[in-house]
Amino acid sequence: MGSLGWLGRDVITVLDFTREDLEVLFTEALNMEKYAKSRLNILNGKVLALAFFEPSTRTRLSFETAMLRLGGSVIGFSGVEATSMAKGENLADTIRMLDAYADAIVIRHSIEGAAKFAAEIAASPVINAGDGSQNHPTQAMLDLYTIWREFGTIDGLSIGILGDLRYARVVNSLIQALSYYRVRLHLISPEPLKPRRELIEFMNSRGMVYDWTDDPYRVINDVDVLYVVRIQRERFPDPMEYERVRGTYKVDLKLIEKAKPQMVILHPLPRVDEIDFAVDNTHHAKYFKQASLGVPLRMALLKLVLGGES
Amino acid sequence: MGSLGWLGRDVITVLDFTREDLEVLFTEALNMEKYAKSRLNILNGKVLALAFFEPSTRTRLSFETAMLRLGGSVIGFSGVEATSMAKGENLADTIRMLDAYADAIVIRHSIEGAAKFAAEIAASPVINAGDGSQNHPTQAMLDLYTIWREFGTIDGLSIGILGDLRYARVVNSLIQALSYYRVRLHLISPEPLKPRRELIEFMNSRGMVYDWTDDPYRVINDVDVLYVVRIQRERFPDPMEYERVRGTYKVDLKLIEKAKPQMVILHPLPRVDEIDFAVDNTHHAKYFKQASLGVPLRMALLKLVLGGES
Amino acid sequence: MGSLGWLGRDVITVLDFTREDLEVLFTEALNMEKYAKSRLNILNGKVLALAFFEPSTRTRLSFETAMLRLGGSVIGFSGVEATSMAKGENLADTIRMLDAYADAIVIRHSIEGAAKFAAEIAASPVINAGDGSQNHPTQAMLDLYTIWREFGTIDGLSIGILGDLRYARVVNSLIQALSYYRVRLHLISPEPLKPRRELIEFMNSRGMVYDWTDDPYRVINDVDVLYVVRIQRERFPDPMEYERVRGTYKVDLKLIEKAKPQMVILHPLPRVDEIDFAVDNTHHAKYFKQASLGVPLRMALLKLVLGGES
Repeated sequence: MGSLGWLGRDVITVLDFTREDLEVLFTEALNMEKYAKSRLNILNGKVLALAFFEPSTRTRLSFETAMLRLGGSVIGFSGVEATSMAKGENLADTIRMLDAYADAIVIRHSIEGAAKFAAEIAASPVINAGDGSQNHPTQAMLDLYTIWREFGTIDGLSIGILGDLRYARVVNSLIQALSYYRVRLHLISPEPLKPRRELIEFMNSRGMVYDWTDDPYRVINDVDVLYVVRIQRERFPDPMEYERVRGTYKVDLKLIEKAKPQMVILHPLPRVDEIDFAVDNTHHAKYFKQASLGVPLRMALLKLVLGGES
Repeated sequence: MGSLGWLGRDVITVLDFTREDLEVLFTEALNMEKYAKSRLNILNGKVLALAFFEPSTRTRLSFETAMLRLGGSVIGFSGVEATSMAKGENLADTIRMLDAYADAIVIRHSIEGAAKFAAEIAASPVINAGDGSQNHPTQAMLDLYTIWREFGTIDGLSIGILGDLRYARVVNSLIQALSYYRVRLHLISPEPLKPRRELIEFMNSRGMVYDWTDDPYRVINDVDVLYVVRIQRERFPDPMEYERVRGTYKVDLKLIEKAKPQMVILHPLPRVDEIDFAVDNTHHAKYFKQASLGVPLRMALLKLVLGGES
Repeated sequence: MGSLGWLGRDVITVLDFTREDLEVLFTEALNMEKYAKSRLNILNGKVLALAFFEPSTRTRLSFETAMLRLGGSVIGFSGVEATSMAKGENLADTIRMLDAYADAIVIRHSIEGAAKFAAEIAASPVINAGDGSQNHPTQAMLDLYTIWREFGTIDGLSIGILGDLRYARVVNSLIQALSYYRVRLHLISPEPLKPRRELIEFMNSRGMVYDWTDDPYRVINDVDVLYVVRIQRERFPDPMEYERVRGTYKVDLKLIEKAKPQMVILHPLPRVDEIDFAVDNTHHAKYFKQASLGVPLRMALLKLVLGGES
């Protein structure tokens, strides 16, 4: 299972790439960190189209910044305009238009499979910036890159994932990415937000080592990485149930008191109240660092896919 | 009637330009096709203002892409922001602001004459990207360019225009543009959507050869170009009347079976259901090609108006 | 009180800077006027983030144009997206994200103190594009620059400020800026819109010479500059009171008939009906000139803060 290479490829799920591909990406991202606050003119003249049918300011701005820092330009739509777009025209025709105008397309869509569908239509590379509830591959690549940067390795780590393991789109992509590595997974969630059966079956098929608990205090002392995702009130059929459990899953000073000294906390952001602000000031908090690495990681991705020379 | 030149001119209606001007534009567009997926630095340092008081993602993005590919930059507003803009400030003051900031202004507005009004105020060139229900000159230029590219000529062709001939803004501009050429026009529409009297008078005054029918099957075997525009339900006083006729005006495999082998189908896009998806796979379908030519055509237009050197 | 310099500094209020700083800015702006319609590549590779939590097309576009003319790039959000942003995430986390991506942040926010709060969080310079009801420093800098350009000096002038002196954000910043100069202030407003006590105390503490009247006709013959701001209907508890006074504060030909020949009228724009259109054609009207100076003034500001070399 060697590198399949990145040039001209679509980025639809993490599983389209090999461990070797990911490591090529990480090495390039490390190189790109030197340029994340300056400019490389390697994509001069290229145009990236952003088709955000679903809002995501953070992901959108990190792609935009990455493209601009590489010397390229950005066109696209998001928000309200995207909504009316989505109503007025079939997705295939919209993608054909962007394909005709731009050199690559970044798509975010609420419907599962929208990115794959777009990739089948477009001749240019399509990058999935989140579709449906299962895939957000560039976020998972960023998550792994952050871990790799912090520990110098991913193999051998114990990784806790805390929060909504059922509906949070990043969890599925993250676990797919981690399946390339020898890690020990602690899955932590309220009972109603346990991982779906498909994800369990995936982990089994890959021989991944994992356990599940509804109590973060049971595993906090073992994890090297605590990856936190939001728990949304709407996911609970019974609002009282949500109120009952939410406190348990809030990461605060009391919880991390039990953690290893080198434990790092990650979060895809934005957060609402799942991490207490007091935690921000501890050396465990790496979610802002993680967010800032989104630019060099996506610079590396765009460079590899669009083939800029450095 | 020689070329009046393009440099520094406003682009308000097709009739502001001569046949020679159009052919200068087409020749330049053909040249620009080489750069439509790369970059020319001939408008480096120029800023184009987009004032889209009415949404049009496709037209907006093709102007943006064209300007960026020429090395220039884009500022502006559209959608909801434009609406609140339109409420909070008189159009003249808004145009004065854009005129002070940018090197040229592209305007789209629901009110007839808004582009001409803007051109009277602004010192910089103003380009009409559609105003009211009668003018969309750059779309008509693109339409003719696509025909010219396909047939090597426009003179001598038989051109069918199918759909809403009364309210569709592109129809008026297209017929103005075709008035410079010796073509045979077949106008095809439901009775309530026949061309307005002003358009009939225009065709007569220019000595254009045309006929009208409500049945596309009567003329499909004669046309070299079938130009399709949408029929909007809202245009019919009686919704039942709309339901009764809509099927007749849908372009499908059955209709084009009767067409000449070299017949091409154009559409300004976006389409709703006026062209069956099955038609996309026939060699007659040129509407996606037409859309992709929007970038080189608008690159040529911006180069000619803004005076970039190549 | 010498120059504190501009490089790397936040721009939160006018009072953060000295008279010498302002004069450095004005001199640089005069220099930048040569490039306001071309391009300087001194900020090539820099990215400016615009965080407009409150809409302001004019201020947003002037910052964007200034950054683009300097060779830099722009990212950001405004309008509806900003609103949902503001709801979904705490301001601190949003600022941290922008700080990680960009080289400087321009913020506009409805809440007093938002810009200062952002500056405390961000390592990059933060520029206040208007927050709360008291501060809009770059507008005040532009106002003074326009006066300086017109008269060659600010000392010794008589300046009338007409309109809502209580709630208009620009009035407070303008008076702060004028406190560095020896001017005579005529404050003109309806009784309910007189300056707040804090502003009166500020003028007293700085030894400023001012008077107040509710009748513009009393002072029109003395002013060199008439600075007009809008009076909003919503500010009057009694709508009938608004209807009664609005005519008095409308600047029209009748009012300016009594003015000195060299008197100039300024307005931050957009205007609604506080200046009669007939005034636009008089030589007193300098508000469009003032608006157009927004680009070179902000080019100078960005150059000084971001440290571009020329």
